[in-house]
Amino acid sequence: MGTYPELDYFKWAKYMDIVSWDNYPSMDTPLSFTSMSHDLMRGLKSGQPFMLMEQTPSQQNWQAYNGLKRPGVMRLWSYQAVAHGADTVMFFQLRRSIGACEKYHGAVIEHVGHEHTRVFRECAELGKELQLLGDQVMNSRARNRVAIIFDWDNRWALELSSGPSVALNYVDEVHKYYDALYQLNIGTDIVSVDEDLTAYDVVIAPVMYMVKPGFAKRIEEFVGNGGTFVSTFFSGIVNENDLVTLGGYPGELRNVLGIWAEEIDALYPGQSNHIRMTEEVGSLHGSYSCGILCDIIHAEHAEVLAEYGDDFYRGTPVLTRNHYGQGKAYYVASSPEQAFLQGLLEQLCTEQGIQPLLHTPSGVEVSERVKGDKSYLFILNHNEDERSFDIGATPNRELLTGRFISNEVHLAGRDVLILERSSFV
Amino acid sequence: MGTYPELDYFKWAKYMDIVSWDNYPSMDTPLSFTSMSHDLMRGLKSGQPFMLMEQTPSQQNWQAYNGLKRPGVMRLWSYQAVAHGADTVMFFQLRRSIGACEKYHGAVIEHVGHEHTRVFRECAELGKELQLLGDQVMNSRARNRVAIIFDWDNRWALELSSGPSVALNYVDEVHKYYDALYQLNIGTDIVSVDEDLTAYDVVIAPVMYMVKPGFAKRIEEFVGNGGTFVSTFFSGIVNENDLVTLGGYPGELRNVLGIWAEEIDALYPGQSNHIRMTEEVGSLHGSYSCGILCDIIHAEHAEVLAEYGDDFYRGTPVLTRNHYGQGKAYYVASSPEQAFLQGLLEQLCTEQGIQPLLHTPSGVEVSERVKGDKSYLFILNHNEDERSFDIGATPNRELLTGRFISNEVHLAGRDVLILERSSFV
Amino acid sequence: MGTYPELDYFKWAKYMDIVSWDNYPSMDTPLSFTSMSHDLMRGLKSGQPFMLMEQTPSQQNWQAYNGLKRPGVMRLWSYQAVAHGADTVMFFQLRRSIGACEKYHGAVIEHVGHEHTRVFRECAELGKELQLLGDQVMNSRARNRVAIIFDWDNRWALELSSGPSVALNYVDEVHKYYDALYQLNIGTDIVSVDEDLTAYDVVIAPVMYMVKPGFAKRIEEFVGNGGTFVSTFFSGIVNENDLVTLGGYPGELRNVLGIWAEEIDALYPGQSNHIRMTEEVGSLHGSYSCGILCDIIHAEHAEVLAEYGDDFYRGTPVLTRNHYGQGKAYYVASSPEQAFLQGLLEQLCTEQGIQPLLHTPSGVEVSERVKGDKSYLFILNHNEDERSFDIGATPNRELLTGRFISNEVHLAGRDVLILERSSFV
Repeated sequence: MGTYPELDYFKWAKYMDIVSWDNYPSMDTPLSFTSMSHDLMRGLKSGQPFMLMEQTPSQQNWQAYNGLKRPGVMRLWSYQAVAHGADTVMFFQLRRSIGACEKYHGAVIEHVGHEHTRVFRECAELGKELQLLGDQVMNSRARNRVAIIFDWDNRWALELSSGPSVALNYVDEVHKYYDALYQLNIGTDIVSVDEDLTAYDVVIAPVMYMVKPGFAKRIEEFVGNGGTFVSTFFSGIVNENDLVTLGGYPGELRNVLGIWAEEIDALYPGQSNHIRMTEEVGSLHGSYSCGILCDIIHAEHAEVLAEYGDDFYRGTPVLTRNHYGQGKAYYVASSPEQAFLQGLLEQLCTEQGIQPLLHTPSGVEVSERVKGDKSYLFILNHNEDERSFDIGATPNRELLTGRFISNEVHLAGRDVLILERSSFV
Repeated sequence: MGTYPELDYFKWAKYMDIVSWDNYPSMDTPLSFTSMSHDLMRGLKSGQPFMLMEQTPSQQNWQAYNGLKRPGVMRLWSYQAVAHGADTVMFFQLRRSIGACEKYHGAVIEHVGHEHTRVFRECAELGKELQLLGDQVMNSRARNRVAIIFDWDNRWALELSSGPSVALNYVDEVHKYYDALYQLNIGTDIVSVDEDLTAYDVVIAPVMYMVKPGFAKRIEEFVGNGGTFVSTFFSGIVNENDLVTLGGYPGELRNVLGIWAEEIDALYPGQSNHIRMTEEVGSLHGSYSCGILCDIIHAEHAEVLAEYGDDFYRGTPVLTRNHYGQGKAYYVASSPEQAFLQGLLEQLCTEQGIQPLLHTPSGVEVSERVKGDKSYLFILNHNEDERSFDIGATPNRELLTGRFISNEVHLAGRDVLILERSSFV
Repeated sequence: MGTYPELDYFKWAKYMDIVSWDNYPSMDTPLSFTSMSHDLMRGLKSGQPFMLMEQTPSQQNWQAYNGLKRPGVMRLWSYQAVAHGADTVMFFQLRRSIGACEKYHGAVIEHVGHEHTRVFRECAELGKELQLLGDQVMNSRARNRVAIIFDWDNRWALELSSGPSVALNYVDEVHKYYDALYQLNIGTDIVSVDEDLTAYDVVIAPVMYMVKPGFAKRIEEFVGNGGTFVSTFFSGIVNENDLVTLGGYPGELRNVLGIWAEEIDALYPGQSNHIRMTEEVGSLHGSYSCGILCDIIHAEHAEVLAEYGDDFYRGTPVLTRNHYGQGKAYYVASSPEQAFLQGLLEQLCTEQGIQPLLHTPSGVEVSERVKGDKSYLFILNHNEDERSFDIGATPNRELLTGRFISNEVHLAGRDVLILERSSFV
């Protein structure tokens, strides 16, 4: 169930054949959070396609406010699952129950008992469409070159600690980095702390508070071989038993990051600091707000790219880059606003030759699955209204309609395109 | 104790000889809520006068903020009880206790121990006045032609359900309809779901979620014989065992209401829809906001009087009228703003020949008790300052002063009039 | 631990040789609250110097937001403890632990394990400075002529009562009076209800709800002998067993205060009343807001100095003065804004010949310790930036630098001066 707090799904997944999950976004769940959850489920078995076992055809019942899924949203969100690795789209439930605590949970067949309802029609139409789509995209895989590390042990250690700030939420910090890449249309894998990193060019470990045995060495190898590593404030503090690694934060990561964090300031509600760029890093310039925690760091081997703009540690480093072997290790010493993270990650990807899948307007999500010599590009317009964008001059077959399209495309509100392209592009 | 959540007073009342209750409004209790509570207590035994067993002479102690009753308020609220059916006005308590958890609860005799206090004086003056009033209004009855149904089983089923919205509060929805009639100076009975409805011309069943055996049939008879019935969104969903009645909402009420509710949308905080009038209904015109839940309905036999103004169900019906036998059944598919409910209920009453008891400025409450050929009109000025209004050209005796008054009356802030009139007017 | 709610430290202190305490201000603890806490600890053994056993060198860990102490703040707050009677300044803890719930609590030696940190340096510098200071100020005493009574039994009785208002907080009311004197640079002792009052000229007993046996008699003697007594709303209500003293509030204090409180109004959130001056009392004039509780009082023997400006008790007394023997007893019938309390207490002190220790800008705290013929004036600049003020023409030795200074002084942000003067000034 996505970032469910109670279970370490990575541990569990080792003993399972198939990953399935239940996708129930709340009224305030960001679209990118749902995509991140799909990617996390895909990552549980290192990219193997998963099942979307449960979603509601329209309404939930256990949320505080259980709004209907607007027309087209169930279809759109079903394709969002497929786009991120689902080979199966299922519902809870076929019929609404007449009693007990879930009697208001949506179903393909409403309490009225017949098929002449909006919800039934939308389910039936999706079924027809998936039948038409056949097995074309089934068993295809992502081929992302960016990975974000997610670790339940790290999360539990963080959340069960007393201090330094109740405003620090591990999943939120992971999501901030994911969202920046999502907005850039750069596909991301969410991987375990034990994942083989050789396939990746950029690896991000937000708030890597707990560093388990061997992890730092593997990061050093990854960076040494040319990879780009990003870590943040409050990293490298404890070992696998939640005991502090003495000798200066970020502990075992200090070598590859080239910095020492002397103090960790917790900001009060309403307080913020600023990231003032001192070097040119892609499009980043001027100043960006940051908060929650501010590591006060010393650049040991690292270069300083930006410094704090306020408070007694004004002028000390907040963004550093350490050249290590063939690669680079970045440290982001506070929790920045999203504009900063987008600019930073865009530049880091560019340096590694990673380009957006497509340039689309806000709310138009793009992701890719690949099978053999075919690439399937899923384009989802989450906006209520039409959006237009350019898909390039080469005509691509669109799987849901069979038409060949190219150049400027007008995609209706909540509509979906699946473009078939050569995977060698 | 009014709308106390834990006990079904209607069930209890069958085994009691006399209904008594304790009236302790909070700092944010609307005046009309207190009146509704009195009317509910009167309704427990089908209109029999009740006892106001407890009220504080001035201060409570268990509220978060225990303000004093301002001068005149204790008297005013005592008459409010009488106006709604109390034949007895009592206090908790004679003397303030010196210890334990209620030692700050107000009393006729304060801790000072003598009678030279504002509170004692007000109690003594009220006593004298009630003595003067004698038994003139005792055992008189209301003669309201409008009834609102209140059902504890319905409330419990609603509140114990998971979904569709935490914003839905049964008592609040009942109060909205009551308040609209209260502002119109139209007397209302609050009755049980088993009450004999033949005496009424208008029966309102807000959020009649649970429809018990025989209820729908009695409503069909009531409407068939010329009555006006009003029900709302989220009605006719379950039977007496909280099991959904399959075949389409509003279940057993579908026949008399002439509509089918296909879906029930729950609005998010801050969200609203609009009621756009498509037919003339009394003074209602233009558009009114609505929210909490929005039934998406199909008019089967009913006429559409208004439609939703927003969202994907814009243009679908939100207010319908079904001619059934000699009467009419209305369905209000969402929770509207008060201006809409006042306009609607004023028109429905007008159609049944029900007129306001009097036209008074805001905050001047009017209700009636009748005994034999005498009608007693209670006029309560809840405002701090004087209000003026016209009581008609016929001179009426005012019971508290013995004076005969007519035409324009100036009623001091927090003052009370009791007009004696012929009950045949 | 300051105003810790669970233990009556006055009772405990009788059996202890030395008072020590742990000073952990929260992010929203007013500076004057910390000073009051020190003074309370000093008062536990009637002025005997205490130990500051625990403070953090920089960071706490169990607060919601654990910000760093800014440079200079640890030193400044250490001297604040000394200024109010500490003869010892200690830390929790020497080394940060590597595990368990306090592993993020600050320490002299950080997790890095060496001494090259800001925090270590600040601790070491303070140590050197205290060594230099030697025993000069040790075992010196305050010599305040103003006392505020603090009583845990009173607090518990108030807090465990049901009513009249959740907005009433005993410690806050005590702090309001303390803060007014703090802003005036008038030193205050916080004393038990059993303390010998003969050394004081002004005694303040905020919300003296519980009056224990003998207390009223001692206050009568104190006032009779020329003292100034101040009490407030909701005083003199119960005896030592939390049983109400019948016969009119403020019970046993009624004689010395010369008033009767007939009613006690609790104001609703957002509500306030006004104190309208009717007599000249020092600089007080015009009108001041007040709230929480409003006693409605009758001046029996007392003069009326101010009356309520609003509500039905407008024009009734809110500030009274009773001449009793050689002294005066004031009653403040509501909880006023701070400007009123400063004006009132300044005048009451002036009448008793009590002058501010020094006139300083806002945020510059002054307090005094005396030993033999020497007075030590502690001047603490809690502001981030420099402040200037005049210390008089007589040159005084400054203990931390050994320099003699006089006239206008420029004190850097967060810096401290300790002036040695003759105690006979």
